[in-house]
Amino acid sequence: MPRTISALVRNEPGVLAEMSEAIRKYNVNIKSISAGETENPDISRLTIGLVGQDEDIRKITEDIAEMDVIIQVDDLARKEFVDRELVLIKVAMEPAVTPQIMQIFEVFRANVVGMGQETITVEMSGDREKIDGLINMLKPHGIKSMCRSGMIALKRGDD
Amino acid sequence: MPRTISALVRNEPGVLAEMSEAIRKYNVNIKSISAGETENPDISRLTIGLVGQDEDIRKITEDIAEMDVIIQVDDLARKEFVDRELVLIKVAMEPAVTPQIMQIFEVFRANVVGMGQETITVEMSGDREKIDGLINMLKPHGIKSMCRSGMIALKRGDD
Repeated sequence: MPRTISALVRNEPGVLAEMSEAIRKYNVNIKSISAGETENPDISRLTIGLVGQDEDIRKITEDIAEMDVIIQVDDLARKEFVDRELVLIKVAMEPAVTPQIMQIFEVFRANVVGMGQETITVEMSGDREKIDGLINMLKPHGIKSMCRSGMIALKRGDD
Repeated sequence: MPRTISALVRNEPGVLAEMSEAIRKYNVNIKSISAGETENPDISRLTIGLVGQDEDIRKITEDIAEMDVIIQVDDLARKEFVDRELVLIKVAMEPAVTPQIMQIFEVFRANVVGMGQETITVEMSGDREKIDGLINMLKPHGIKSMCRSGMIALKRGDD
């Protein structure tokens, strides 16, 4: 099962190199990573999905917590959090199946953001299960290209 | 001006360490990074926003293109593409300003995903300008925490 950690880091060159080096040392794969600015321009928030042994991931979290550039690191498996992911999907669209595909978009509340002669591009946000659900429904029609943002998350409640 | 590059990479341990090391060598800052699975489970797509001299970013793109794990790398500044970003924002909410805040959410089509005694959490996807717009509107009310996915992008049209 993938584990997700969330870290607040100082915006300094080399932060990502340092963190990914800490992960590379253990036999753990990065499934997704997502980093962007926060309310403070000097600080970024990283959300990293990891696949590996729980024990190795625990050690990685400890190693990361000790770095100078790290302000805070949370293991999201242990907390209540809201998680979301964004996906862009370009799917083949033949005239005969257009109504079917449009119905899938409607059920999933996916928004059309682009159209070509033979393809249509949609965006959708949701939790991992919803994203996987849309992908599974569109797969038989032929996914031409796809881009997932990786999970982002915030704690539930007022904290 | 931030520049965005998009890379298709093989899912191997250490890919991110290798790429971020290549970026660290030049005096370039990673503004955002977003990596997730593609339609092929062995391949991930990375979208990286960089801030630095154009010449340095050109060299980074060249260095990355030569790596064994890299399948394709595009400089998105030079192509037509659809870009989107996802944000989760937890904003302070006092009863007196609730109608005002709800109106901002409605205008931006932001979805409420969580609520506490003193805060409300919304998600919204859009291009960078729309995300920045929502943040600027909510700032005066007090942003308690925020998580941005970093930009993801796909080429326009059928390619």
